[in-house]
Amino acid sequence: MKTVAIFGVGLIGGSFALALRKAGFEGRIIGVSSDDTIRAAIALNVIDAALPAEEAAAQADVLYLAQPIHRIVESLAELAGWVKPEALITDAGSTKQAIVNRASQVVSRAQFLGGHPMAGRERRGVEAAEANLFQGRPYVFTPRSASELETPAAREFLQWIPRIGSFPVIMDPEEHDRTVAFTSHLPQLVATALAATLDGRPEPQTGVYGPALGDSTRLALSSFGIWRDIFETNRDQILVALESYIVTLQAFQQALDGGSMRRHFDAAARLATQVRDRPAGAFPDS
Amino acid sequence: MKTVAIFGVGLIGGSFALALRKAGFEGRIIGVSSDDTIRAAIALNVIDAALPAEEAAAQADVLYLAQPIHRIVESLAELAGWVKPEALITDAGSTKQAIVNRASQVVSRAQFLGGHPMAGRERRGVEAAEANLFQGRPYVFTPRSASELETPAAREFLQWIPRIGSFPVIMDPEEHDRTVAFTSHLPQLVATALAATLDGRPEPQTGVYGPALGDSTRLALSSFGIWRDIFETNRDQILVALESYIVTLQAFQQALDGGSMRRHFDAAARLATQVRDRPAGAFPDS
Repeated sequence: MKTVAIFGVGLIGGSFALALRKAGFEGRIIGVSSDDTIRAAIALNVIDAALPAEEAAAQADVLYLAQPIHRIVESLAELAGWVKPEALITDAGSTKQAIVNRASQVVSRAQFLGGHPMAGRERRGVEAAEANLFQGRPYVFTPRSASELETPAAREFLQWIPRIGSFPVIMDPEEHDRTVAFTSHLPQLVATALAATLDGRPEPQTGVYGPALGDSTRLALSSFGIWRDIFETNRDQILVALESYIVTLQAFQQALDGGSMRRHFDAAARLATQVRDRPAGAFPDS
Repeated sequence: MKTVAIFGVGLIGGSFALALRKAGFEGRIIGVSSDDTIRAAIALNVIDAALPAEEAAAQADVLYLAQPIHRIVESLAELAGWVKPEALITDAGSTKQAIVNRASQVVSRAQFLGGHPMAGRERRGVEAAEANLFQGRPYVFTPRSASELETPAAREFLQWIPRIGSFPVIMDPEEHDRTVAFTSHLPQLVATALAATLDGRPEPQTGVYGPALGDSTRLALSSFGIWRDIFETNRDQILVALESYIVTLQAFQQALDGGSMRRHFDAAARLATQVRDRPAGAFPDS
């Protein structure tokens, strides 16, 4: 792997470039992005050079697609016609079934391996990119069969995952999407719904709230552009998670009205503690 | 105001003592708490001395009740029999109607003024107390009539609120409880319900989640002991807020299924921005 082309040099694409370099990657890192982003990415030493998509695809050993989901789905066929036969195309999209299905239809000359680094931060764009973004975070890969992880291109790429401080987790695309519906998409909707419920109501206008309200509504500042694609490509699983959450809230209504909330608090504290205690890297799949 | 007695020297009571001292209060600060807490509070220079409740009440110009709500409600009658006629009894309970109603029945010799500083932090106990806890935060007072704010004892006490960096907001006890049902109690239930929904499910066991899940479930670590009293004393308003939130989530189900989530994201971002942008002190009621 001598040349890596990053398609979409934003927070994730830019951070991946910085992380590779910090981990000792000595090859060339090419960026494919809008003019403004390219200017910033070169000024910040995130990429070595910029090329048009076709040239970048033709030269790359690894194509790293870090664009919005719909952009990845739309561009796969074109890229697949430009790449070297021994190249690896991988992506960082937040849902996997739509992308992996599309890739299985249109990528034949090179190999496609779906990926999703479970990392992020509040700020977006290449200016927010940082080499340590993936440190201690899981990096999901979603091959359609285990043999896809054993090709020379995949083996070489996967060696870089622990080097950037991350640990690979292998899942079906379906299992991935079902999992993140609960662990990532539901938390977003929970915060958006809280903020949307309060918007326009008189109570927040009084200014009478503690610091927790700001924390509870932080995710509500997320870009709809990113989430529209996630909703479109994982609607059914998200609806399952949302229904499960509403059932919990209805149980709270009953408990508040005549029973006790204690067991709900105990269950919630157990999960919240587990999410905090689990040491990065100590996962059964890693 | 020469002697202040803090009943319950935990996070709030201890922080109020530290904040008063930092603001230049030169009188005596007496603590009434369990033996362990008193030992820690004296070692940390949070209070000057400890006394049994009856002696502390008899000596204090201000009695600052920072215990759990039910403890305040239960102890008011006894304290009211011990206090000096010119004393002010105030409290820091998270709901106000139950406490103010009880005070109006049993406090006759001295004055009672309900209060609620909208401050807090994740850690609890006197070890977590800090002088800056109230900085930039609203401090709600809930007189039954405006004249309660004009007595000599109340005027003297209220002078200290801006000195500790806080700003007073005046509300009916009912308006306070309706407001915090939405701005404080609902955010707690939202986080507890998310964590309770995930507890025992297979998805979090995979370890596949980003840093946002930890942030979204942090409040789920809150002590049930504190919240049990809040639920018991503000049940009706909390049920209204919870129902309103469930209605929002049901609208999300419809929007995900066939419409667009954009307007919900826009509303949510508006509220989340407002909660962040409002400068402390620039409140209409302050």
